Amino acid sequence: MAMNKALPQTVITLSLPPWLERALPPPDRAFPAVEDRMRFVIGLAQQNIAAGTGGPFAAAVFHGGTGRLITAGVNLVISLNSSIAHAEIIAIMLAQQRAGTYDLGGGGLPPLELVSSTEPCAMCLGALPWSGVRRLVCGATGEDVAGIGFDEGAKPPGWQRELEERGIAVVQNVCRAEAAAVLRRYADQGGIIYNARQGERP
Amino acid sequence: MAMNKALPQTVITLSLPPWLERALPPPDRAFPAVEDRMRFVIGLAQQNIAAGTGGPFAAAVFHGGTGRLITAGVNLVISLNSSIAHAEIIAIMLAQQRAGTYDLGGGGLPPLELVSSTEPCAMCLGALPWSGVRRLVCGATGEDVAGIGFDEGAKPPGWQRELEERGIAVVQNVCRAEAAAVLRRYADQGGIIYNARQGERP
Repeated sequence: MAMNKALPQTVITLSLPPWLERALPPPDRAFPAVEDRMRFVIGLAQQNIAAGTGGPFAAAVFHGGTGRLITAGVNLVISLNSSIAHAEIIAIMLAQQRAGTYDLGGGGLPPLELVSSTEPCAMCLGALPWSGVRRLVCGATGEDVAGIGFDEGAKPPGWQRELEERGIAVVQNVCRAEAAAVLRRYADQGGIIYNARQGERP
Repeated sequence: MAMNKALPQTVITLSLPPWLERALPPPDRAFPAVEDRMRFVIGLAQQNIAAGTGGPFAAAVFHGGTGRLITAGVNLVISLNSSIAHAEIIAIMLAQQRAGTYDLGGGGLPPLELVSSTEPCAMCLGALPWSGVRRLVCGATGEDVAGIGFDEGAKPPGWQRELEERGIAVVQNVCRAEAAAVLRRYADQGGIIYNARQGERP
């Protein structure tokens, strides 16, 4: 079987593409309005497909009060060979690594929010309550991403209410048209729709 | 704010505890029956709480045909400061890293299955269709894990059918009593129930 036995099986390393570090703003730059935050994130999604480093998705954790960027992630499924490497997961892992805690809603931390260029898939929705973020802001919708062929998985009906009951506010359709345009651009340029087994059903 | 600005923001490293590598079987050992696979996984969950490296959960990817172990993961949320570091996520990431692909159901790979000591939470359920595994085997149930205080998130009703429609068979209640006993042992010894914000609701 095509398994590389030489690789160590006790360390996982996820390296972000070099362009992403260069795309980060100076630490004191604020993104006051939710649209400012979303446009920055949509810009990362666009840069991700232009650089060929992953799917048309980006996400970032912001300080909800000051609007300063904490961490940013992009979809790296293809370049990192990891179906887990969605933009939201990367941004959350980086923020927790930086804060030194598994709970971004824990004592001493300001309210943090996750801004995602597209409504999260079932995995990333499930990651939110564990993460400690206090607000989710979405651009393109689940329909938009299904429209280019991705299967986002089975989300619970009323997932917005489920998050809100767990202390996470939900804001949808922020700059939706701009975010959806990046999805369509990816599809139009022949980007890989990386559903497992090419979406083959049993 | 309590953010460590010195840490690089472009690399994520997840290191598994040294005991886990020592707990792995020789590569040619087969686990023919599903109960053999589950008992191995439950043993890892027990070792994880005994070593104090995480929650009472373990998971492993097996070759569905030969029953050989591909990769194993344990819950490392607390020790790695990452709410994403669930056992299933670790096992899947390791298997994809080893196979060099984001799709464990892709061409050239045998049918792989994920054996989890406890029914996956909403995040890990959402991760399965993307991963390419062909079968999910669970020990303890969602009720068992909620019984010790974890909030597994909102799972879609009929999640088993949703997985099966995506080509993933589901087998539940394998060695459930043994798996649930590890959960209770963790709770009895005062293990941290690491819901975000200590489960505080708005």
